[in-house]
Amino acid sequence: MKLYLIRHGEAVERGETVREEDRWLTAVGRDGFRANARRLAKKVVAPEVIVTSPLVRAVQTADILAEVLGFSGEVTVSQELAPGFSSEGLFRLAGVRGSPRSLAVVGHEPDLGEVFGRLLGRDGALPLKKGAIVALRLDSAESGTPARFLWMIQRGKKFRELPEPG
Amino acid sequence: MKLYLIRHGEAVERGETVREEDRWLTAVGRDGFRANARRLAKKVVAPEVIVTSPLVRAVQTADILAEVLGFSGEVTVSQELAPGFSSEGLFRLAGVRGSPRSLAVVGHEPDLGEVFGRLLGRDGALPLKKGAIVALRLDSAESGTPARFLWMIQRGKKFRELPEPG
Repeated sequence: MKLYLIRHGEAVERGETVREEDRWLTAVGRDGFRANARRLAKKVVAPEVIVTSPLVRAVQTADILAEVLGFSGEVTVSQELAPGFSSEGLFRLAGVRGSPRSLAVVGHEPDLGEVFGRLLGRDGALPLKKGAIVALRLDSAESGTPARFLWMIQRGKKFRELPEPG
Repeated sequence: MKLYLIRHGEAVERGETVREEDRWLTAVGRDGFRANARRLAKKVVAPEVIVTSPLVRAVQTADILAEVLGFSGEVTVSQELAPGFSSEGLFRLAGVRGSPRSLAVVGHEPDLGEVFGRLLGRDGALPLKKGAIVALRLDSAESGTPARFLWMIQRGKKFRELPEPG
């Protein structure tokens, strides 16, 4: 399975009239993630499945991805991707979706970075910047299977190196 | 003020693992609304402000709109547009946003249809189909001001006639 771990773009702060779960992407966050998604579109066809955390900033990021990639399916929501996301949740989610050949998940830090580190057998987290897209190869959609790092996209550029451990 | 009332596209049903507020657009819902948004993009420049209900199906609809229109601002969320939306809420929302020259709001039935009927001085609601876009002219962003119906878009086509009263 090809796995894309994606962190939502920059969002407005929580406020008197803005609930934590309603925080939406800033214009800069939209632009920045759109650039990353366009870079992704040049490299790959749309993933088979796109799943997002139910929080607004993640749903928006997933939808920009879908529109830029010309994705023709459903952008689905999973509570597994809400804050508190874990690698166990990821494997449950992939199982429920029938272990697709390619899966994009949109979520939050620090969970994504911890799952990323865990999948590569690291001791610590490998934190993702806002709007970053990480591509991994997972040979089996079973918990405990090690993954292989392929590349990552952030700030409109592609990198073959891993981010610094957190 | 030019006002666009927009109902979210077709969404999956609530289920054991799908909460009411997480219901996402079906592939048909995404396609259908994308066609409506493209028709809108041919007629108008992007509205100054786009505001959506916090529910996933509305956030997704608002984001498809933004991407198709090349909207460069923030797609914002307002609790006023959650189910229970009223014309009073609309005027409060427009006031908070500084009474923009053009405003697009994405929400739900039966509230949108009731607001639509109310703005035109009707006794009853004028229900909107899923993914429909209604354009109105409001001469003042004050409660009680009558609006003028301009046109509506549904199923990829433009109509100059009002929908049947509900």
